[in-house]
Amino acid sequence: MGNDGYEIPENANEHCPGPQSESAGKSDACEGCPNQQACATAPKGPDPDLVSIVERMATVKHKILVLSGKGGVGKSTFSAQLSFALAAMDFQVGLLDIDICGPSIPKMLGLEGQEIHQSNLGWSPVYVESNLGVMSIGFMLPHPDEAVIWRGPRKNGIIKQFLKDVYWGELDFLVVDAPPGTSDEHISIVQFLQATGIDGAIIVTTPQQVSLIDVRKEVSFCKKVGLQVLGVVENMSGLCQPLSDFRFMSVTETGEQKDMTQWVIEYMKEKAPEMLNLVAVSEVFDSSAGGGAKMCKDMGVPFLGKIPLDPQLCKAAEEGRSCFDDSKCRVSAPALKAIIEKLLSQLEVSRMED
Amino acid sequence: MGNDGYEIPENANEHCPGPQSESAGKSDACEGCPNQQACATAPKGPDPDLVSIVERMATVKHKILVLSGKGGVGKSTFSAQLSFALAAMDFQVGLLDIDICGPSIPKMLGLEGQEIHQSNLGWSPVYVESNLGVMSIGFMLPHPDEAVIWRGPRKNGIIKQFLKDVYWGELDFLVVDAPPGTSDEHISIVQFLQATGIDGAIIVTTPQQVSLIDVRKEVSFCKKVGLQVLGVVENMSGLCQPLSDFRFMSVTETGEQKDMTQWVIEYMKEKAPEMLNLVAVSEVFDSSAGGGAKMCKDMGVPFLGKIPLDPQLCKAAEEGRSCFDDSKCRVSAPALKAIIEKLLSQLEVSRMED
Repeated sequence: MGNDGYEIPENANEHCPGPQSESAGKSDACEGCPNQQACATAPKGPDPDLVSIVERMATVKHKILVLSGKGGVGKSTFSAQLSFALAAMDFQVGLLDIDICGPSIPKMLGLEGQEIHQSNLGWSPVYVESNLGVMSIGFMLPHPDEAVIWRGPRKNGIIKQFLKDVYWGELDFLVVDAPPGTSDEHISIVQFLQATGIDGAIIVTTPQQVSLIDVRKEVSFCKKVGLQVLGVVENMSGLCQPLSDFRFMSVTETGEQKDMTQWVIEYMKEKAPEMLNLVAVSEVFDSSAGGGAKMCKDMGVPFLGKIPLDPQLCKAAEEGRSCFDDSKCRVSAPALKAIIEKLLSQLEVSRMED
Repeated sequence: MGNDGYEIPENANEHCPGPQSESAGKSDACEGCPNQQACATAPKGPDPDLVSIVERMATVKHKILVLSGKGGVGKSTFSAQLSFALAAMDFQVGLLDIDICGPSIPKMLGLEGQEIHQSNLGWSPVYVESNLGVMSIGFMLPHPDEAVIWRGPRKNGIIKQFLKDVYWGELDFLVVDAPPGTSDEHISIVQFLQATGIDGAIIVTTPQQVSLIDVRKEVSFCKKVGLQVLGVVENMSGLCQPLSDFRFMSVTETGEQKDMTQWVIEYMKEKAPEMLNLVAVSEVFDSSAGGGAKMCKDMGVPFLGKIPLDPQLCKAAEEGRSCFDDSKCRVSAPALKAIIEKLLSQLEVSRMED
């Protein structure tokens, strides 16, 4: 099988599984596939580009892959805030977005509309600050609204270019934000980075069972390809918001809504001012089955912590800001900070300012 | 280019875009790709399997593709509840899950652990009720925790099998739940279904800019491949939950939390019972830039409506239940119902019970 010179352990799951029948197996699934010939004839030797990647990555101390099973769990938000936090600790940080079909990193770092430049050293990342450089396919698309239709092999090509052609310079951390799932991009990035040494992967999830099912697959993927799981982060662990930030509606029997916010706020101010300072918590996504912590225990991987669903963090991500710069993200920033400290102690990295 | 006989309009974006430089173009990106040869030599004629697909799909009246730009926007929840709703209207419904890497449909229809059976008519879907059949790769995996690592061509193979080998019988609707993005699966499913007539696509989004950016790409994808956009659904449009369902915490200056829920509930009962009946609304995801409605206006596609973020709907999805069966989803079910009615009137389908 042509795995770009990378050996995925042989396992029945890697083939298109037919139903429980003898007649429907791999051959059926591959029938008519235009890449059959290449699958059969691709060379098995090591990829010569790996040498260039190893050279390019020699100046990068730590490489961390941020994964998720399902999309929309806040993986890119986490990658962005992790990079902001590490840069604020005076580390040299690179953030590489390998989500080819839906790159959100440029927006989340406040870099929309920026372009990549090329020098004789290679492609230059776009810099948020002198110690935080960013690379994303989003910087290369002429029309942000236009769909980029990528077949698998082309995705591998661009990921390889990102690793061998970007001039990062000396980095303490390269944070790689991967698309959701376990597909072409994941095999490629792991294969390319393993040749240069990779610290491991952080897996982001929400507390829901549908997300945790996919995280289990992601952990299994890491085990299969020999990638260390640095830990699991549970994001959107319940909405947590000051009561005074809500709107309040009365709903009539016919479904009509009437805004009662002003009345409620004035009532609380007058009769129960203590209530105005309370934080309202809602388990938006059902975690009755134990959430991320239990899943980690079951699968023997570290649990790094929970981040509450904080509308202020969503807003910071939308606006491309660090959540650590002011006190707006008061319910989420401390949780994120604790997770990052735990991660650093696990990597045995002491903070630069210590 | 080997597009399985399908012609994607020529456009610079379909190639790996190099940076704004003459030297980095398609050839660089394809270098080292094991499928280069197949790309160059794949036959251009029509796919013989298309004939089988057309035959198989001849008994299906309406085919609707459910897409999203980003993951985690509730696309599968929408597909599941759409299918439940259509089945409750006495239509014959099939739900096909083509998310190969992270199939959530079996769980969301309450069908975890079920298996596919084969007869001389083909693969049999798994039935929720006699008029609601479901097909998903999730029914075919021996170990739900294990990662399935799929290169693009294999995904196309299994999608093709789903279309040509599943015995759906007579269907009013086939709802196809696609993975997020615009990748192999999307090109394949559109190519395969277009030969048999497809009504169009529903695109699910959240109100956030990061999600809407990706929806614009999805709309552009539909236009590129000649697929009608039936409409856009904005999901998670603000949390909407009875005030009495929240927990209330006081947060000290050192960040410690104390549960005040009992005190708050008793205080409200005694002093302001009207408050207990209020619904609290929070714009969890920032929609200050206009949300889905504005995006639809900009891009000239229909807006089908908004569904609030309802923890009860999340719970129904987790438990594989229809949100229309009881009154628990009182904030989301009416919104979903209105969207489905609008969709049906657009498809000019009158309700069976009328």
